[in-house]
Amino acid sequence: MTLKHGSAGEASLLISSPDRKGLVAAISTFLYERGANIIDADQHQDRQLGLFFMRLTWELADFSVDEARFRREFAPLASQLQLTWDLAFPARRPRVAIFVSGYLHCLVDLLHRQQAGEIACEIPLIISNHPDAAAIAGHYEIPLVQEPGEARQFELLARQEVDLVVLARYMQILSPRFVAAWKGRIINVHHSFLPAFTGARPYHAALQRGVKIIGATAHYVTEELDQGPIIEQEVMRVSHRDQLEDLIQKGRDLERLVLARAVRWHLERRILLYANKTVVFD
Amino acid sequence: MTLKHGSAGEASLLISSPDRKGLVAAISTFLYERGANIIDADQHQDRQLGLFFMRLTWELADFSVDEARFRREFAPLASQLQLTWDLAFPARRPRVAIFVSGYLHCLVDLLHRQQAGEIACEIPLIISNHPDAAAIAGHYEIPLVQEPGEARQFELLARQEVDLVVLARYMQILSPRFVAAWKGRIINVHHSFLPAFTGARPYHAALQRGVKIIGATAHYVTEELDQGPIIEQEVMRVSHRDQLEDLIQKGRDLERLVLARAVRWHLERRILLYANKTVVFD
Amino acid sequence: MTLKHGSAGEASLLISSPDRKGLVAAISTFLYERGANIIDADQHQDRQLGLFFMRLTWELADFSVDEARFRREFAPLASQLQLTWDLAFPARRPRVAIFVSGYLHCLVDLLHRQQAGEIACEIPLIISNHPDAAAIAGHYEIPLVQEPGEARQFELLARQEVDLVVLARYMQILSPRFVAAWKGRIINVHHSFLPAFTGARPYHAALQRGVKIIGATAHYVTEELDQGPIIEQEVMRVSHRDQLEDLIQKGRDLERLVLARAVRWHLERRILLYANKTVVFD
Amino acid sequence: MTLKHGSAGEASLLISSPDRKGLVAAISTFLYERGANIIDADQHQDRQLGLFFMRLTWELADFSVDEARFRREFAPLASQLQLTWDLAFPARRPRVAIFVSGYLHCLVDLLHRQQAGEIACEIPLIISNHPDAAAIAGHYEIPLVQEPGEARQFELLARQEVDLVVLARYMQILSPRFVAAWKGRIINVHHSFLPAFTGARPYHAALQRGVKIIGATAHYVTEELDQGPIIEQEVMRVSHRDQLEDLIQKGRDLERLVLARAVRWHLERRILLYANKTVVFD
Repeated sequence: MTLKHGSAGEASLLISSPDRKGLVAAISTFLYERGANIIDADQHQDRQLGLFFMRLTWELADFSVDEARFRREFAPLASQLQLTWDLAFPARRPRVAIFVSGYLHCLVDLLHRQQAGEIACEIPLIISNHPDAAAIAGHYEIPLVQEPGEARQFELLARQEVDLVVLARYMQILSPRFVAAWKGRIINVHHSFLPAFTGARPYHAALQRGVKIIGATAHYVTEELDQGPIIEQEVMRVSHRDQLEDLIQKGRDLERLVLARAVRWHLERRILLYANKTVVFD
Repeated sequence: MTLKHGSAGEASLLISSPDRKGLVAAISTFLYERGANIIDADQHQDRQLGLFFMRLTWELADFSVDEARFRREFAPLASQLQLTWDLAFPARRPRVAIFVSGYLHCLVDLLHRQQAGEIACEIPLIISNHPDAAAIAGHYEIPLVQEPGEARQFELLARQEVDLVVLARYMQILSPRFVAAWKGRIINVHHSFLPAFTGARPYHAALQRGVKIIGATAHYVTEELDQGPIIEQEVMRVSHRDQLEDLIQKGRDLERLVLARAVRWHLERRILLYANKTVVFD
Repeated sequence: MTLKHGSAGEASLLISSPDRKGLVAAISTFLYERGANIIDADQHQDRQLGLFFMRLTWELADFSVDEARFRREFAPLASQLQLTWDLAFPARRPRVAIFVSGYLHCLVDLLHRQQAGEIACEIPLIISNHPDAAAIAGHYEIPLVQEPGEARQFELLARQEVDLVVLARYMQILSPRFVAAWKGRIINVHHSFLPAFTGARPYHAALQRGVKIIGATAHYVTEELDQGPIIEQEVMRVSHRDQLEDLIQKGRDLERLVLARAVRWHLERRILLYANKTVVFD
Repeated sequence: MTLKHGSAGEASLLISSPDRKGLVAAISTFLYERGANIIDADQHQDRQLGLFFMRLTWELADFSVDEARFRREFAPLASQLQLTWDLAFPARRPRVAIFVSGYLHCLVDLLHRQQAGEIACEIPLIISNHPDAAAIAGHYEIPLVQEPGEARQFELLARQEVDLVVLARYMQILSPRFVAAWKGRIINVHHSFLPAFTGARPYHAALQRGVKIIGATAHYVTEELDQGPIIEQEVMRVSHRDQLEDLIQKGRDLERLVLARAVRWHLERRILLYANKTVVFD
């Protein structure tokens, strides 16, 4: 089964700007004049903040200009319309590093999805602070580095040309320096329905509070723990019959799902960040 | 609480056409040149069928042309681009007739939502084949006509200038002539997750089959019973503990929800019909 | 449609106790010896706390003892097994007072459900601090008292022999004295997925935090605001497209559902309270 | 993380019978007299059919009788009360064979869950009619047999003392002889929300019908294709934006979830079969 997402033959453009008349007309005309066969176009306005967001993808097959020329020609228009823009002519598949501790369910899930073509990326590196991940990393023939110091982490990520860091139940807090260096490029899964139950042992807290629904949240990592922009959330009903072990087990299914979706959307360049929130063009 | 939907000061344009390059550019430029302040723009492509769909809404406040002139000026462009289009400059609130039998939960729900401003329409007429609806119709001061023949129904709908017929658990099959006359303007709620359990007594059938989730479906009525384009579906988990009465009661909540959403989306002109399916621009 | 719940011909027994061997055998034998035709029996153990919970309902038709004799004969067994127990031989339908402010959707919903037989109770009293509820109360012929002081509230609730107070979006904080007097008999609906977004304006907070799912919660009222035992929660997906008005409107549907379910379960005596949590026997 | 389910130190008893007074009292007294420390007890009545169902689990630690003596002593009571019963004193972990074709997501998911302790069983055998499963089977060191004929399948299942056959997206129809021999012990996952879209290519059919929600179903296999008793269903919202590939990808997540749950519940002996339906004691 070949899946449509993240085809190498597609360019994408993400735009944020102050809202004003004529944005769609100007941008779509620019692309039309260069022969773009638009595959997806989506817009969004935050009326409260007066902001405009747009995502465009088009086929490169018929497209008349290369990346350098596009950048050169689009820059004046962008400047005039006050656009913040992010263009991608994918020369190569994005590269993802996975950080993991002793719970392997998210790692196993991501590795299989990558192999099955559900998420379009390379995974050149796994970093772990627990010995259990080695066997599955070996099966998928992915280099795993055990407990590298932070300096070594920076070096490994640079050498492997990593684009995205995925914390797949990584039970260690990253330093502010690391978070700053990888701003907007670290996705974490937290095992609660944020903003409820931040911090450690959220299933214990959920059980104690007696909630009737539990959740999991995938979000970008920022300096403040569990406070970054939410990408995806998923929930499941529980009852008084569910004990702690049941919450943990049900929760794992949610963690797998939200993390996989968030990673896919990021790789497909569907996510725009603003005001500590996300626009996810689906 | 004033709600944003269906504001009288907004025009909307729904477009279907064969897909081709430059559609967005041409249409958005046309609107920009006339000073449109676009509020919502959404597109969709059915790649398999090579079709393009678009919905645009814009404020009338600053807009430089009236409806007649828009139609005159847009027609040549539409013709050139092979657009099928549906324009609305809302001069008045749309008018809805509700047909109902003995189960009143959907009727009660719609009447309250209309009064609370959740669905933007007038409800000038209720037609019923059961005596129980009279009291609540009286409370909301809406004329109710009991068991009119079909000729009289046509007359009442015409006199009240009705735009949409809503079958709110109306337990009587409409004639082919009626369905043809009101094509694309009759919304029904069926108490199952279509296409499962078409026809009569779907909760009995669901219980017998032992499903673990039940549903309800709002759809446009076509000649074939329960086969029309689906607008919205909603589901709820059930278990072996749920007996027939429980399915019926849980199902009512689903019926209320899907019917209210479908009516609101229709009134907000969010729905495009094609190939016995709907595009719902949300 | 007559629904099965809360039949007048059924007795119910709710039991909490320290967990120990033989509880089920002893209690079920006691009932069997008196000819009980058990309709529902459900148990639950909280292993962490070593507690046992049980709910039994049986038909009164064949039952050989009346309420007084049951109490007399069951007391020694209960004492020996350290049971906390709550018996009901329903002589009359439970009586509910609804408190409401300006948002009427939960009130309208409860009144219709009561009339349609979905919740088995009388509603002899509505207390409101806003003028809008009068019309619908009048339609259902239920006495409505506007802004009574607290002393008057106590008096009204006593005179109407009210069993349960339902806060149907009542925008006023009850005094500690009121809460203490009605402990375990006040159900509130909070318009967030607790424990997220306690306090005022939860939809504003949800929008600001950028959550992808919103919720509503029905809970018993305790001294601490929004901290009481949760009875039911329901959630709905939202996206960046949803503005504040959309959250409010979607949330209303959740509020209706969770409050109606919580009231029904309370009236059907399905809820056991312990450790600031609920066991809901479904 | 050790999970509570399927502990080797627990016995379980599943009972079906005509409903009558005193069943709970008689059965619970029988167990109490032998020192059973009951962990879970759940009952259900199908009032329409006049049937009673019960599931009991208890700790073996303090239990005073062994399996043979239990069977000997319980038989007369069971006979007198017309009980159909199924007792398990687990001497060994149940043994599962997985049948799989080219789609590996369910297989990968089950293998990881088994290793992580989420499903309590041995997996001594994988049977495949497609070459792709060999690598992952090798990683988990599970013998895989490629395309054995039916006679050889019977032989392999017998030699491995298999208790349950799981069809994890196995794209081949089993013979009536095979189905009859393994009645009640074959679980299949069908990639639709049954009874909608039976047979081949359900996602194609769902797309064509324009449903707004898709589903997956785990069920026991019977002679009639996709007509067996449903164990679990799960659903996910889709929209006009979802093309065939999206339905397939979203559906995979549902397939993984329902199959894993169904297998776990079967292994935990939570499922009772009757009238082509399941009671799932949760």
